Amino acid sequence: MTSFAVPPLTPTTLPIEGLDAVFPVRRVFCVGRNYGAHVRELGGDPKDQPPLFFTKPADAAVAPGGGVAYPPGTSDFHHEIELVVALKGGGADVAPTDALALVYGYAAGVDLTRRDLQNAAKKTGQPWDSAKAFDESAPVGAIRPASGDVPSGAIRLSVNGQVRQDGRLGDMIWSVAEIISEVSKLWRLEAGDLIFTGTPEGVGPLARGDRVEGEIENVGSVAFTVA
Amino acid sequence: MTSFAVPPLTPTTLPIEGLDAVFPVRRVFCVGRNYGAHVRELGGDPKDQPPLFFTKPADAAVAPGGGVAYPPGTSDFHHEIELVVALKGGGADVAPTDALALVYGYAAGVDLTRRDLQNAAKKTGQPWDSAKAFDESAPVGAIRPASGDVPSGAIRLSVNGQVRQDGRLGDMIWSVAEIISEVSKLWRLEAGDLIFTGTPEGVGPLARGDRVEGEIENVGSVAFTVA
Repeated sequence: MTSFAVPPLTPTTLPIEGLDAVFPVRRVFCVGRNYGAHVRELGGDPKDQPPLFFTKPADAAVAPGGGVAYPPGTSDFHHEIELVVALKGGGADVAPTDALALVYGYAAGVDLTRRDLQNAAKKTGQPWDSAKAFDESAPVGAIRPASGDVPSGAIRLSVNGQVRQDGRLGDMIWSVAEIISEVSKLWRLEAGDLIFTGTPEGVGPLARGDRVEGEIENVGSVAFTVA
Repeated sequence: MTSFAVPPLTPTTLPIEGLDAVFPVRRVFCVGRNYGAHVRELGGDPKDQPPLFFTKPADAAVAPGGGVAYPPGTSDFHHEIELVVALKGGGADVAPTDALALVYGYAAGVDLTRRDLQNAAKKTGQPWDSAKAFDESAPVGAIRPASGDVPSGAIRLSVNGQVRQDGRLGDMIWSVAEIISEVSKLWRLEAGDLIFTGTPEGVGPLARGDRVEGEIENVGSVAFTVA
């Protein structure tokens, strides 16, 4: 028996716009089916759906400039541009009216998905983790500190300069405050947690070498090339 | 805009038997349906199932002496005693013949489950995360450094002194080496990762105040009281 030491995880840190400080990612929560059109695109009825949550490991977050490799185990690797909420405070059972006080800022992020594995999991009732929680599955841009207003403008993603997703944050089914409140009924939120808030219609496949650029009005951008 | 700093996550650390060193938890992977009898208990056919993986956030791990609260959002909170594999090395696409060289040691752990939410998720094809990846959902005992042999003996769990689960590690459908190999096809494994290897038959509900004690022959024990 030797005195073996495993190095602890160094959290992914995200740059903060206008500051030298960084934001260390603690956990990554995601909301599924949160835009009417995307829900219809996937065959659901937006009015019938409660918010649906899944998670990614903290080290799946990729800071600006970090690499995203085409993942193993899939032949249908999809992009989903999303508004990301970064929390500075936490709590359990947070009321929607108290939720926005926990928000440090917002960023643009991409919820990368092994769509073939997700479709198989949905069909058989199996967990989504291999489809959603894989390495480098959560590229995120710089965090813009919250100014008070929740962003409500355009959210877009292009691949090699071609627009693929072009939606509006105002079309979210569940608002940022409602999402924070709903997550906090199932998990105790903590400072450092990120919440991906769902994607508008237009999700689609990525290939090696594709340049992905996302932008959210009054929030920021996220960009990477599939290696 | 103030110079706000979010404290980084401090990883859960597990004691190591016979050493002053600790093992910092990086990620938590779990295998579902890995014992014949438990698969039949849940209505499946063990021969037909590929290994099924899900994850928990690193901070869901609870070290010996840590608290486990009855979680919100459920009225059917279940225990699942499992052999936990702690990795000292990683890699992608690890061959089964190379897998055991990555193992630092073994521990007893309990995969706590909101069974009602899991059953609903399986029925509707939704993610398992709210059922599996919640706070304090992964109590783990001290790690016993690997001696070379993979443990193959008895695995038991009792609640308030009554035996609920009583199986044998030798009844696993997928071996430890096969599990490591299969996870590494979908994720790049890293030192510090834990893998929960599935539970034998006898899973059942827990109530507030229940004393849960698990033991795995030649590995160790895990114990907690539901607060």
